[in-house]
Amino acid sequence: MAGFGREQLQLVDVPVPQPGPHEVLVKVAAVSVNFRDHLTVENGMGAALAFPFVPGSDMAGTVAQVGPGVKRVAPGQRVINTFWTNWHDTPLPKSSTQGKAFGGPVLPGVFSQYLVFNEEDLIPAPETLDDSAASTLTCAGLTAWNALISSGHLQAGQRVLIQGSGGVALFAAQIALGHGAQVILTSASADKRARAKALGVQHVIDRTQPDWPDAVLAATGGHGVDHVIELAGGDLTATLSTLATGGRIAIIGVLDGFHLNVPTPLMFARRARIEGIGVGNRKSLRELAQWLDLNNIKPVIEAEYALADLPAALSHQQRGPFGKVVVRMN
Amino acid sequence: MAGFGREQLQLVDVPVPQPGPHEVLVKVAAVSVNFRDHLTVENGMGAALAFPFVPGSDMAGTVAQVGPGVKRVAPGQRVINTFWTNWHDTPLPKSSTQGKAFGGPVLPGVFSQYLVFNEEDLIPAPETLDDSAASTLTCAGLTAWNALISSGHLQAGQRVLIQGSGGVALFAAQIALGHGAQVILTSASADKRARAKALGVQHVIDRTQPDWPDAVLAATGGHGVDHVIELAGGDLTATLSTLATGGRIAIIGVLDGFHLNVPTPLMFARRARIEGIGVGNRKSLRELAQWLDLNNIKPVIEAEYALADLPAALSHQQRGPFGKVVVRMN
Amino acid sequence: MAGFGREQLQLVDVPVPQPGPHEVLVKVAAVSVNFRDHLTVENGMGAALAFPFVPGSDMAGTVAQVGPGVKRVAPGQRVINTFWTNWHDTPLPKSSTQGKAFGGPVLPGVFSQYLVFNEEDLIPAPETLDDSAASTLTCAGLTAWNALISSGHLQAGQRVLIQGSGGVALFAAQIALGHGAQVILTSASADKRARAKALGVQHVIDRTQPDWPDAVLAATGGHGVDHVIELAGGDLTATLSTLATGGRIAIIGVLDGFHLNVPTPLMFARRARIEGIGVGNRKSLRELAQWLDLNNIKPVIEAEYALADLPAALSHQQRGPFGKVVVRMN
Amino acid sequence: MAGFGREQLQLVDVPVPQPGPHEVLVKVAAVSVNFRDHLTVENGMGAALAFPFVPGSDMAGTVAQVGPGVKRVAPGQRVINTFWTNWHDTPLPKSSTQGKAFGGPVLPGVFSQYLVFNEEDLIPAPETLDDSAASTLTCAGLTAWNALISSGHLQAGQRVLIQGSGGVALFAAQIALGHGAQVILTSASADKRARAKALGVQHVIDRTQPDWPDAVLAATGGHGVDHVIELAGGDLTATLSTLATGGRIAIIGVLDGFHLNVPTPLMFARRARIEGIGVGNRKSLRELAQWLDLNNIKPVIEAEYALADLPAALSHQQRGPFGKVVVRMN
Repeated sequence: MAGFGREQLQLVDVPVPQPGPHEVLVKVAAVSVNFRDHLTVENGMGAALAFPFVPGSDMAGTVAQVGPGVKRVAPGQRVINTFWTNWHDTPLPKSSTQGKAFGGPVLPGVFSQYLVFNEEDLIPAPETLDDSAASTLTCAGLTAWNALISSGHLQAGQRVLIQGSGGVALFAAQIALGHGAQVILTSASADKRARAKALGVQHVIDRTQPDWPDAVLAATGGHGVDHVIELAGGDLTATLSTLATGGRIAIIGVLDGFHLNVPTPLMFARRARIEGIGVGNRKSLRELAQWLDLNNIKPVIEAEYALADLPAALSHQQRGPFGKVVVRMN
Repeated sequence: MAGFGREQLQLVDVPVPQPGPHEVLVKVAAVSVNFRDHLTVENGMGAALAFPFVPGSDMAGTVAQVGPGVKRVAPGQRVINTFWTNWHDTPLPKSSTQGKAFGGPVLPGVFSQYLVFNEEDLIPAPETLDDSAASTLTCAGLTAWNALISSGHLQAGQRVLIQGSGGVALFAAQIALGHGAQVILTSASADKRARAKALGVQHVIDRTQPDWPDAVLAATGGHGVDHVIELAGGDLTATLSTLATGGRIAIIGVLDGFHLNVPTPLMFARRARIEGIGVGNRKSLRELAQWLDLNNIKPVIEAEYALADLPAALSHQQRGPFGKVVVRMN
Repeated sequence: MAGFGREQLQLVDVPVPQPGPHEVLVKVAAVSVNFRDHLTVENGMGAALAFPFVPGSDMAGTVAQVGPGVKRVAPGQRVINTFWTNWHDTPLPKSSTQGKAFGGPVLPGVFSQYLVFNEEDLIPAPETLDDSAASTLTCAGLTAWNALISSGHLQAGQRVLIQGSGGVALFAAQIALGHGAQVILTSASADKRARAKALGVQHVIDRTQPDWPDAVLAATGGHGVDHVIELAGGDLTATLSTLATGGRIAIIGVLDGFHLNVPTPLMFARRARIEGIGVGNRKSLRELAQWLDLNNIKPVIEAEYALADLPAALSHQQRGPFGKVVVRMN
Repeated sequence: MAGFGREQLQLVDVPVPQPGPHEVLVKVAAVSVNFRDHLTVENGMGAALAFPFVPGSDMAGTVAQVGPGVKRVAPGQRVINTFWTNWHDTPLPKSSTQGKAFGGPVLPGVFSQYLVFNEEDLIPAPETLDDSAASTLTCAGLTAWNALISSGHLQAGQRVLIQGSGGVALFAAQIALGHGAQVILTSASADKRARAKALGVQHVIDRTQPDWPDAVLAATGGHGVDHVIELAGGDLTATLSTLATGGRIAIIGVLDGFHLNVPTPLMFARRARIEGIGVGNRKSLRELAQWLDLNNIKPVIEAEYALADLPAALSHQQRGPFGKVVVRMN
């Protein structure tokens, strides 16, 4: 795109790049959309972008060519990319600037037909998923897995509150259910609540009712929830009131703005823990991929678009899909 | 029973006891059998027993009467007992002598039609299980839950090796599968392997083949297993060779004797961890009960016997059942 | 006291109470003062109090008499009390209402010459501390121990930022130093900074300088801090900017009000964790007592007052002491 | 050396190697000796070695020259090497064959005046240690740090039993004391016990007395120990009997042979955990170095030898030094 705004998006022909040492040329098949892409296209999330700019962070594709010394993948292999470059196996990045993200202020995005990656920033695509489904793991899937499993150490029988029904939310629901946890999902939409219920979620609650925290507590028999997947942010008072003692809130999203308001007395009373989740590392991404294969679980995709319809895909994302929105690249 | 040996078992009429303060009279409906009961009846597991002696540790029943001050349960409520008295919510017992076990050298067992418990040593029976199924949680179910969940912190996608197909083994398989783990079960019996496969276990391996460790490694794509449920004990060399780096062996049983033989170089190379599991606490028992209710999972019971046929039930246990053996008390 | 306000405090003669079953009569020797006592005396921290009301939560004394069945302590033994009743060995209280605190809306306080406790709510006083020093562990000492050790799992070599120099702050400094950690303490007072330095704190920083976060980062060689003991609350933006990746903020105090303001992007970038510390359990209190004895470490007490001078002691606490303020009861 | 046996050691002149890309030439100043070196020189620890063979794994030196692309170190900088190549920041190696060790069947050792390392396998030497002291961290120091801190999560006030007084043992004692733990050290030598006491160890026990486990329990007031640094191996029955509930045995050494004998009933009763420690990763080595600098702690070195006296140094190591034996390379 040549400037901020969805209307600035355009398809441009550029030469197919060549992979250097330890690099891999990938023919991109599908790219999934995140709320972050919508914000980046509109205003760069506050950061300056160098135009022309390519958005997008999550792709699935096929290795077209490998550069010298590549060992991790081979031509013809189906792959997906990591969200962060250079954050592989350590539980935390070594610094807050260790990895760089595709489709942000530093690196170009993945809405390209051919793209060169460092071999370290790719993993095999899950065998049981097609390209569209595989493209949803990089950001949304991994964020949910990290929030509940890698960082959250979710245990069977625990109670998980999920605030929303977008991509991360439904991944979180599937992961929690697949772990034997009890899932409570809030949504303002009766239709989305019904669809969540059909997915196996045990309790759905109307977020527009002012007493929704009481309904959450009632669903847990008064115990409170052990984990919250918090996608809105903003004022956490109501959310904190639903926590069990020692409960944990994973901060994922910013729908309600870039600040949290946290009442201290509830923090003390609940021995609450609040944690910022910044997607996750390559090791966790592999675990998620293996778990999906092993249990034959499919990500929820509400709609697929052609590349020419990317603006419509972003509009769909902005409105709030049930699960993921994917763009087919060919 | 009047002395050691299955032939010394006899039914005796005694007065129904009365519950004192904080005590509860339970009408016992079902008692499940453990290998420990077989050993205790034969020789007290090396400990002196005061005869007449009543064996048994795991019962389900109904509250018949409550003593003064009882708050945790009410008449008519279905309950199961904890394996240990006085070990409730702490991750570990305060000392190795904190709790006492029913049906051992210190406390009489639960093969009685009426029995008095301290109210603290009972929890509500799972609502979705009948009495026979509910009676299997106290020792076998809780041991598996503790080994994999409370102490083991099992994570979805991890690989679990289960050495056997008795009560603890099948609980472990169901819990691991319900957590999204990959389960590899070894057994010497083709029939039991087929039944384990039907239960959902992904890989079954013939334990009588000398290369069974290679088959385990192959099932994990060479990664090795993250958790082992070790029911035999004895020489751990082959088991250690199947471990992933940092893998963990939960020592549960003593089928191959009361000593482990552990090769030190494999301990170093694998960064292996070996842990002794002594059943578990009341908190974990509640978690297991809630998880079974939530996910509508039924323990595997191979056979039920009448109380008069207790010797046959013990023989069945000695031969090695697929899952649990239960005795109906009425 | 007969109503809110320091001027309502008065000494009143009442009969010495008698210990019932499992109760213990303690002759109180010293009571330490917390900021909470100041707030409670002024306005109940917003809660209604039943007058006449006795403030105070932390005492050391000697067992004067034991009721029937008492096993944990004996007459003549020096003891201190737990902050919460009925929270003993579990990592978390079972619910946010499990324990009750002395000197708050539910239980009378400890500014009494004789007081009856349940035997479960007392532990032996450290042998190496006199009564005044021993009285400081119940709230301030335990809060610091819980924040850094029981909940914080502090590791040698980690970097700890302590925001203040009161009772909890200096306990935290001593505990962190005794663990081989690097301690950075901020204070607005040059005198207090010098005294902290004399205590062994490696880095002291002037909190009134707007670039204090840069000074914290510089003290860690750019790494950032792994733990923060946050006593002010309020806007956490500056504090978050000093965190290492995966760093953790223990919320202890409310000097800057009852709400936290947390910028979400910094939460993501730092993978920050924020945790509410509600004092701690009896098990941790015993660990702290044993650690002080083992290492011969003395709590920092800035001033001691006679009981008749309790208003002056509260004024001292309100102004902000270096360490603890204690009231002698005899 | 030209074959097995101390008498086969000889000094040989070879050309000084040149560093390639990302490689570093180090002028070695000091090498510390481990029991492993003694075994390797005598018989390769059972593995075939390619002769001529250079033993040794732990060195301190100065960067003499850097190859193209080196960023982590600079000429003139003092450095020490990691024990394993290629195991840097992950808590566990990715496989049991990920890293290779210097001075073993795969890589030549460090008893050389000049040596080329990959830049990733070096870290800065601690500023407060001279070369001899710095050379002791690579294997002995890191093993102790990993056993107690990285893997052991030692907590202040816990009780640590150390079985011996060699290099790892005394590092473990210093680390445990520096963490505020209670240390109990066993030794057969009255002289070594006295020197351990002088080092600050609170309890020393004569290992030749058959009732030494009772003395350990008595030293802990009957509680038992939370961590054991086990350097002998062999029959663990007596050691297990000294454990607190949930206690942990870190298996470090093989003085009593290459097999452990573990009584299962004690494993159950103690909820014991046994763990194999394979030195540690680079991240932990950096932590140890920083901690030594921060707290101004010096490793215990009993003797230093000239390179020409390497056979005498190995004899000293075989006899069992109090702390470390170091060889000066210039």
